[in-house]
Amino acid sequence: MKMIKRFTTTIFAIGFCFTALAQEAVDMAAVQKIRKEGLENSKVMDLAFQMTDVAGPRLSNSPGLKRAQEWAMKQFNEWGLKNVQLEAWGTFGKGWQVDKYYAATTTPYYRPIIASPKAWTPGTNGVIKSEIVLIKADSLPQMDQYKGKLAGKIVMFDNSSIRMLENSYKADVKRYTEEELDKMAKAQAPTPGAQAPARAANPAMAAMMKMRAARMEMTKRIQEEKAGLILTYARGSYGTFFTSNGASYALDAPAVSPELEVSSEDFLRILRLLRAGQKVEMEAEIKTSFYDQDPKGYNVIAEIPGTDKKLKDEVVMLGGHYDSWHAGTGATDNAAGSAVMMEAMRILKTIGFKPKRTIRIALWSSEEQGLHGSRGYVAKHFGDPKTMQLTADQKKVTAYYNLDNGTGAIRGIYAQGNAGVAPIFQEWLKPFNDIEAKTVTIGNTGGTDHLAFHAVGIPGFQFIQDPMDYDTRTHHSNMDTYDRLVAQDLQRSATIVAAFVYHTSERAAPMPRVELPKPNPAGR
Amino acid sequence: MKMIKRFTTTIFAIGFCFTALAQEAVDMAAVQKIRKEGLENSKVMDLAFQMTDVAGPRLSNSPGLKRAQEWAMKQFNEWGLKNVQLEAWGTFGKGWQVDKYYAATTTPYYRPIIASPKAWTPGTNGVIKSEIVLIKADSLPQMDQYKGKLAGKIVMFDNSSIRMLENSYKADVKRYTEEELDKMAKAQAPTPGAQAPARAANPAMAAMMKMRAARMEMTKRIQEEKAGLILTYARGSYGTFFTSNGASYALDAPAVSPELEVSSEDFLRILRLLRAGQKVEMEAEIKTSFYDQDPKGYNVIAEIPGTDKKLKDEVVMLGGHYDSWHAGTGATDNAAGSAVMMEAMRILKTIGFKPKRTIRIALWSSEEQGLHGSRGYVAKHFGDPKTMQLTADQKKVTAYYNLDNGTGAIRGIYAQGNAGVAPIFQEWLKPFNDIEAKTVTIGNTGGTDHLAFHAVGIPGFQFIQDPMDYDTRTHHSNMDTYDRLVAQDLQRSATIVAAFVYHTSERAAPMPRVELPKPNPAGR
Repeated sequence: MKMIKRFTTTIFAIGFCFTALAQEAVDMAAVQKIRKEGLENSKVMDLAFQMTDVAGPRLSNSPGLKRAQEWAMKQFNEWGLKNVQLEAWGTFGKGWQVDKYYAATTTPYYRPIIASPKAWTPGTNGVIKSEIVLIKADSLPQMDQYKGKLAGKIVMFDNSSIRMLENSYKADVKRYTEEELDKMAKAQAPTPGAQAPARAANPAMAAMMKMRAARMEMTKRIQEEKAGLILTYARGSYGTFFTSNGASYALDAPAVSPELEVSSEDFLRILRLLRAGQKVEMEAEIKTSFYDQDPKGYNVIAEIPGTDKKLKDEVVMLGGHYDSWHAGTGATDNAAGSAVMMEAMRILKTIGFKPKRTIRIALWSSEEQGLHGSRGYVAKHFGDPKTMQLTADQKKVTAYYNLDNGTGAIRGIYAQGNAGVAPIFQEWLKPFNDIEAKTVTIGNTGGTDHLAFHAVGIPGFQFIQDPMDYDTRTHHSNMDTYDRLVAQDLQRSATIVAAFVYHTSERAAPMPRVELPKPNPAGR
Repeated sequence: MKMIKRFTTTIFAIGFCFTALAQEAVDMAAVQKIRKEGLENSKVMDLAFQMTDVAGPRLSNSPGLKRAQEWAMKQFNEWGLKNVQLEAWGTFGKGWQVDKYYAATTTPYYRPIIASPKAWTPGTNGVIKSEIVLIKADSLPQMDQYKGKLAGKIVMFDNSSIRMLENSYKADVKRYTEEELDKMAKAQAPTPGAQAPARAANPAMAAMMKMRAARMEMTKRIQEEKAGLILTYARGSYGTFFTSNGASYALDAPAVSPELEVSSEDFLRILRLLRAGQKVEMEAEIKTSFYDQDPKGYNVIAEIPGTDKKLKDEVVMLGGHYDSWHAGTGATDNAAGSAVMMEAMRILKTIGFKPKRTIRIALWSSEEQGLHGSRGYVAKHFGDPKTMQLTADQKKVTAYYNLDNGTGAIRGIYAQGNAGVAPIFQEWLKPFNDIEAKTVTIGNTGGTDHLAFHAVGIPGFQFIQDPMDYDTRTHHSNMDTYDRLVAQDLQRSATIVAAFVYHTSERAAPMPRVELPKPNPAGR
């Protein structure tokens, strides 16, 4: 998922209670079939294997994403899904991938460096060997001292925000406790239309944004000075490093310098040596490729068509983003969610379900750059959140279910401020209380594709998932690999999603909606 | 420290109580000076920086170790220590270092590999590119199917012992709890002369040793088939990998194939692809150097000479091993212990201490290959544990203190079955109870250089240290770097060691001894 705060609940003045107006129907016979297929004949790990180990990193518009999209379409067709297509959602920009990465310090001794080229940065045009120049600058004026000294050099920024590593005495992997779930269940309703607090309201975030702006200016100067390679600090530890947003993917993006995001241990080792006045030399060879033949972005779409005369034009949607960052193979972000959603479709198809409403899966792209795939799809099909001009189809989508919080099993669902759906979800979760899914929170969660639907008044939901090592180790890191996927968790999630989709499809009435949002010029 | 079980207490039938025959003297004025210098003017992190970031990996007889040894001698001389020398302890064999490491999969997609050449293995003689051949074999006969198919190929062993990764819900870093320390304090005395249980007694260890033996046979076959590069699985996760013993460092060691220890994520990704029948291609370039001009192994020795007419020929020794494995910079294993012991010497010198007995520090080498440095030193100066023929000097060493369990602060000391020293240590720890050091256990600990002294009847002790991330992340890993060192812990440890050494030097009587061990033909 995109890197913004996930669980944001703006507190309402008055406490909130779910009111079940009528007992919501649960089809236990169908649930039993779904459970049997989902928990005993699961294919979810095979699906995840194809997306990660086989396809590789799936950065937006990269060859890896294209491979994964082609495989998904083939798989959907093999299962007999209908209207399988790669649907353009709009213009994205350039694809990019790493073709070679090699880097090591050679003085004072040889040591290979754990790092990754920053997304959408160029290569080094062959092997570069250089002493590393330490740039002690927090702002552009401080850069003047380096004028004329950087051409062809490998440079590293030193600045006041860099901290040495500190020990954590907490486990990397965690599940929600009963207490935490209980707190979520008792959360108060968010103010209707409330957004997550603006980034600048958070002092740490504000400082980061200011630094990032300064860094962009300084990086531009580095480019003008024709430095050969920039080393930047990547958050993380013990060999895990997190990638951040890379250079621009726009077709007309200005040229930038080659840039490596360096794991903390290697970065700090070099930094300490340079700060101590030691000479550090380095060699590196980076090759990257850009792909601009087709700048359009695509989602993979497939359906199980509805069969009820009156309801078949209505749609239940489910999905997750399929694109990833490039330093890992995007296993928890978000092969996990994509595989679960595919597996839910497979389960429903395998049990021979003939849904009343049409069931449609979407594997979004370019979520990581701003939910572009889902927002583009919603804009094209359902309406524009800037103006709130809606299409006729907007009314036909009864709900959208999303999964994008890692490998952790579904423990419940965010009702996203929709008081009408909460008691319904509570009933639907009952057959899964034994596998630890039970919590409905009225609270919001952000950061991922359900927001695109929510923004135009379509009920869009993300499930509550056990956190596992998502925030500590995998979310956008080089260690987001298949190894992090927990089979039982994904199996449970797929089973629960299949049952939710089943019930949504069969429900007499569409899912309750909240008041339409006001037009939002920001478009989100 | 060497990789064998650390805390081994063979239980005696009868409980054990310390009996303080007379109140042991504590010189509080001296302790105050030591604390002030050690806790307020510490240089221990600077010393550790020189050993790790500046010197680099310190594999036995490597250029890195030589750099670090030269620096230590220079430092000892600058402090005004006496008899500073690089003293040969015997013949070690070849030195070795990595001069280039590069590896990546290129099919089905490009991905760099986190790995390290195995110690004392040769390079690839240029760039090697090959499909990876999966060798499904647990034993030599199963190798026959690959006859004639491996020349120049990159090969990977698949076998029944390889497991996919599993989540840990425990913290990587931990400190001892009061409960754990209390248990140690109440431990019963080990049976005199008891050894740690033989490796084969542990089923997992026995299986590992059997597999290792089979692997050696199979690896020899690989060599005969002229395979280009072997990939082996390295324990660890999230980018941390642990190195194991490498090829032989003997001058006459037979030729072996180039071999990479591959981080679990990269190894398992390739393995899963190969098991699924996917083609995986790889490129690699490895250069290593061997150093056989001087096969002798050396320890660094330095002294603060004794000043008491009667006692100055007696010696208090302190030390730790200085050599490391090659994939990290040997920070917790054992720059930590080496820096603490050096700092203890600096503290004693700085406060102007004129000891009664001579104080001698030793920075051992080749501990990782079998405590060779300390054992060679002991054999040369004090006696032969095989025959128990002892020198006159054996009686003159009143105690040896060792540190080699990582960065964790000293929380107490292992009395190593010596009931006489326990009440003495208890008194000496009292001025440090406020900085959380208080526990004396009668129990043994193994795996490091105090055993060399213990084996010839010289009281040799290792301190109890907080475990921190030693077993989970750093011990022999690529992530054993300066980042893992905790300043406050090292400062406290150095202060406590300095006080122990001080009191040992000033004590009227030498430290109590246990009964002499029986001759041990195994020599340890």
